[in-house]
Amino acid sequence: MFTGLNQKLTEELLEAIRFFNLKGWSPATSTNYSVRSENKSEYIISRSGVDKSKFCGSDLILINQKGEILPPFNKPGIKSSAETEIHTAVYEMFPEVNCVLHTHSVLGTVLSHSLVQEKQIRFEGFEILKGIEGNKTHDLVETLPIVPNSQVMSEILNNVKGRLDKNSHGFLIAGHGLYSWGKDIATAKRHIETYEFLFECYHMMRRF
Amino acid sequence: MFTGLNQKLTEELLEAIRFFNLKGWSPATSTNYSVRSENKSEYIISRSGVDKSKFCGSDLILINQKGEILPPFNKPGIKSSAETEIHTAVYEMFPEVNCVLHTHSVLGTVLSHSLVQEKQIRFEGFEILKGIEGNKTHDLVETLPIVPNSQVMSEILNNVKGRLDKNSHGFLIAGHGLYSWGKDIATAKRHIETYEFLFECYHMMRRF
Amino acid sequence: MFTGLNQKLTEELLEAIRFFNLKGWSPATSTNYSVRSENKSEYIISRSGVDKSKFCGSDLILINQKGEILPPFNKPGIKSSAETEIHTAVYEMFPEVNCVLHTHSVLGTVLSHSLVQEKQIRFEGFEILKGIEGNKTHDLVETLPIVPNSQVMSEILNNVKGRLDKNSHGFLIAGHGLYSWGKDIATAKRHIETYEFLFECYHMMRRF
Amino acid sequence: MFTGLNQKLTEELLEAIRFFNLKGWSPATSTNYSVRSENKSEYIISRSGVDKSKFCGSDLILINQKGEILPPFNKPGIKSSAETEIHTAVYEMFPEVNCVLHTHSVLGTVLSHSLVQEKQIRFEGFEILKGIEGNKTHDLVETLPIVPNSQVMSEILNNVKGRLDKNSHGFLIAGHGLYSWGKDIATAKRHIETYEFLFECYHMMRRF
Repeated sequence: MFTGLNQKLTEELLEAIRFFNLKGWSPATSTNYSVRSENKSEYIISRSGVDKSKFCGSDLILINQKGEILPPFNKPGIKSSAETEIHTAVYEMFPEVNCVLHTHSVLGTVLSHSLVQEKQIRFEGFEILKGIEGNKTHDLVETLPIVPNSQVMSEILNNVKGRLDKNSHGFLIAGHGLYSWGKDIATAKRHIETYEFLFECYHMMRRF
Repeated sequence: MFTGLNQKLTEELLEAIRFFNLKGWSPATSTNYSVRSENKSEYIISRSGVDKSKFCGSDLILINQKGEILPPFNKPGIKSSAETEIHTAVYEMFPEVNCVLHTHSVLGTVLSHSLVQEKQIRFEGFEILKGIEGNKTHDLVETLPIVPNSQVMSEILNNVKGRLDKNSHGFLIAGHGLYSWGKDIATAKRHIETYEFLFECYHMMRRF
Repeated sequence: MFTGLNQKLTEELLEAIRFFNLKGWSPATSTNYSVRSENKSEYIISRSGVDKSKFCGSDLILINQKGEILPPFNKPGIKSSAETEIHTAVYEMFPEVNCVLHTHSVLGTVLSHSLVQEKQIRFEGFEILKGIEGNKTHDLVETLPIVPNSQVMSEILNNVKGRLDKNSHGFLIAGHGLYSWGKDIATAKRHIETYEFLFECYHMMRRF
Repeated sequence: MFTGLNQKLTEELLEAIRFFNLKGWSPATSTNYSVRSENKSEYIISRSGVDKSKFCGSDLILINQKGEILPPFNKPGIKSSAETEIHTAVYEMFPEVNCVLHTHSVLGTVLSHSLVQEKQIRFEGFEILKGIEGNKTHDLVETLPIVPNSQVMSEILNNVKGRLDKNSHGFLIAGHGLYSWGKDIATAKRHIETYEFLFECYHMMRRF
């Protein structure tokens, strides 16, 4: 349905979505994904309720900054992700961000659920930290905010907004999973992979 | 062998069977799967004893409500799954159910074996709970009955029937695995994925 | 190189070898596999030292009951598996066995290494036990002998032979892995999958 | 871009890179790989910053012994791996080595991070030890040096050089991962697989 640059973006986004599904990070129709379209005030986003092991080009739709589905995608039965508001809020907060990804791994779920009282998860000293944009060394501390889960997106956003700045690249929703973003799809995918790898290191270190 | 709607159903069922096998949820010819046929009083079900890594269309056969194999599938050497009676019983109990799936994962085996005295496993507060039909929030408790294993299907059914109602979407047989179902193949597959993901969260939380 | 029935056997054996490699059960050129050829006193066996992720038809050779490579396979540089003697001994002990498989998983390695003093590993009450030929119920105890590792095959065979009878379907070599067999390739593959699944259950139960 | 023997080498190297990525040993643009070219004083090495799930032939470039990119690969924006210096140093130390590989697995990261004070990791008694060149038995002890991580390659090399001799086949950088090598790509790949398998055995034994 998309053409030109938007078609290229959807192809790259689909590749990332398939990669995450093979990793087991998008069970049971969970997760959602978006990329800023060629028209910078519109976003290409995943439809609600689709099995990610079968996700394809026709499951991506175009929305505006209010999260409204744009023609020709606004057909009966087509809904944008229930978490569309998180995507539009991230794009609004960070004009340089062009891709927002969300994974729902077992470790992302369990760590955020277990550590929600601590309000953050803290990583230190791993080489993989260089996978986060701007980090030039392993010798630093990186934290990821954790906010309580809610079915009301504005509650999640109210909790997390004050804790994000331009050096932020993601956050965890308790018992729900990871949001991360980047200047392009490759960077956002790298951030997701980095955080998911850090979750595994964190969990293994904790019980070493 | 199937045509029309039944052919489409078998293709979708085969896709789910392959997906589960890649996950490692159907080792050593274990597991069985069915879908209600176009004729609602007949069911398409997996043959007994087939390696699920090689399972194909000719391994699906048609049975009636008594579990008898219907022509042209009633050939010498062709047997329906040993657990056919569980499938027919679920369809009888729940007229709105159109697909019954069974997985045999390591975690489904070990959790049900270890928790059989507690008669159930209990999940609370995870976003993935919304993967179960009817759940609109993570903020609830979901339980899955566990019944002792038996080689006599009527014993399993006698134990589980009184514990299922129309809000039930599955149960565990101790040391054996998960049965789940839904209004269509996609819903039943989503339920299996949701429960298997919850098993992983449960196990990880227990030893956090 | 093989024709007729032997060609069919090699194709089925290759499929099992690829399946095990994807499971991670044949790291670093480890493991070996054989099937009794159409001529029942000859065996088709894997060559020594081949990366199993690249294993193909030309890596299977024909040997006789003494383990000697038969023409046209007896070319310079072609060696039969270092553990050929175990394969020929199993075929000699059990005339009804037509396939011998060996996997080298992390769990097979660690469990056999850790439990070698107990001389066996014991499984009880799991439905998957029905994956072992002859078992009609989950309600039984199955044991698998464990023998110390050695680079001298006759030592391994001397230790294990007295502990195997016609109801035996495999054994473990400490820190080395699993041998299992069956009346055909499908049965031997099912036995390997069953034991490897039991190893996972055993390990998870032990630390539940 | 490569021809003749170099083309064959790049194809084999790409196959190993894809294998490691499927194992999850190269997350988030981490890791680097090289092979000695037909001209023995030049090396084919992976470009910096490429997603290994998409890595292809055009991501391999030619460098000399000083790590300088050679024509026609020396184009704007093309950078050799940040760890090029480790590769060139290994080739200089060991003239018989023709391939150097680096993986970044969760276990390689966590074990090296946790055991850095012990300065090495020690493996004993596993059959898989025969995967290391020159080992004829499982009945031996193999150690792998661990050095602290640094963003200055000369620091890493100063720490590790005195601890390597011609019987060495690899080392760990703390919180960073594994370097290993061999006389050809197959041997270096086998070493990586062997060490990664040993990491899994070590970790499982430690908490058995």
